[in-house]
Amino acid sequence: MRKNFGAKPWIYPQPVLILAAYDAQGIPNAMNAAWGGISEANEVSVCISEEHKTTANILAQKAFTVSIGTAAQLTACDYVGIASGNDLEDKIKKAGWHTIKSDYVNAPLINELPMALECRLVSYDPDSCRLVGEIVNVSADDAILDDEGGIDPEKLRPIFFDPIRMTYREIGSVAGKAFHEGKSIK
Amino acid sequence: MRKNFGAKPWIYPQPVLILAAYDAQGIPNAMNAAWGGISEANEVSVCISEEHKTTANILAQKAFTVSIGTAAQLTACDYVGIASGNDLEDKIKKAGWHTIKSDYVNAPLINELPMALECRLVSYDPDSCRLVGEIVNVSADDAILDDEGGIDPEKLRPIFFDPIRMTYREIGSVAGKAFHEGKSIK
Repeated sequence: MRKNFGAKPWIYPQPVLILAAYDAQGIPNAMNAAWGGISEANEVSVCISEEHKTTANILAQKAFTVSIGTAAQLTACDYVGIASGNDLEDKIKKAGWHTIKSDYVNAPLINELPMALECRLVSYDPDSCRLVGEIVNVSADDAILDDEGGIDPEKLRPIFFDPIRMTYREIGSVAGKAFHEGKSIK
Repeated sequence: MRKNFGAKPWIYPQPVLILAAYDAQGIPNAMNAAWGGISEANEVSVCISEEHKTTANILAQKAFTVSIGTAAQLTACDYVGIASGNDLEDKIKKAGWHTIKSDYVNAPLINELPMALECRLVSYDPDSCRLVGEIVNVSADDAILDDEGGIDPEKLRPIFFDPIRMTYREIGSVAGKAFHEGKSIK
C-alpha cells in the first residue's frame, strides 16, 4: 500500500549549494540553496527568490559561484542559509569564511569550501525564481584531490539536504558503477 | 591552491531520478536521469533529450512519475539508464519492475521503487532539454515509513550519482539539523 503525502518538494538527495557573489562595493555575500542542480551539460539552475542580497548581487555582477556544502563547514553552511545578507554588514566574515576572486568570473571563491562551480549569469526569472548560470569552470582545492588529480569525494565530504527530516547527511559507501551495473540485465 | 577542471556538469550529490510514463498503448516505459531536481515549491525539472521514448510518452500523456532510485533496485535503475525504450518492447518488464497507475495522473508508479513524485507536465523545451512537472502528489510505500508515518530514509535507501567517479553511492550518517546548526553563529 502507498501512502499519499500531497504535493511536496521532496527529492532524495538534494544538494547543499552555497551561492556567492560580490555587491557593488566588492563585498562578497553567500547563501544556501537546496532547490537546484545541473540543468544541462554546461548549466546549473537554482531557485532563489528576488529579495535575497545574493540575488541582487548576482543580477548586478552577472556572475556567481556555486560551492558544494561540506561536513567540515556544516555550521557555516547552515548559518548562511538562516542569516540574511540584507541585515548584516559582512555575513561571509561572520561565517568565518575568506574569499578570493575567481580567475574566470567576477565572483568570489570561498577558501573554506574546496569545490566550486564558477558561473556566468544566463538568466533570472523572478516569477519562477529560476536562476540559470553557465558553468565556466569547476575548481577544487589541492587538499581534496586524489593521487590522479581528480576530486576525491571522501576528502570533499559533501553534505546533502534531507527535505523530509530537515537534516544534513554525509555521503555513504559506493553502491555500484553507473552505466555498468545494468549491463547484467541488458 | 585550486586546480581548474574547465566547464563540467559536476554537483555533489546528484539524484537518481527514474522517470516513467505510458505510451499510446498504455505500456509503461522508464528512464534514468541525474540532471534535475526540485525547481520550485511544487515543481520538478529534469533535462531529458527529445529522442527518448519516455520523452515522447510524457509529451503525449502530459503526465509522468519521478521515482527515487534505491540501493535495492540499483541494477534495474542503471539498466533503464543504459537501455533504450525505442529498441525494446517492454523495458520495464525486462528491468523486473511492475507498475500500477497513479491515482492522480495518467502515469505509472513502479511497485519496486517505494517513493515517487506524481507529476503533470507543465512544459518541455527540446532546445534546452528542460522538462518541468507540477508535483501533484508524493507517494511512498508503507514498507519505508517510520513509526510516525513519515518517509524513513534508512528504509528508502536512496542512491545518488557521483558525476566524477561515475558511481552510485548510498546516503551516509546524519551530520546535523538544517535551519538549526547555524544558530550557534547567529
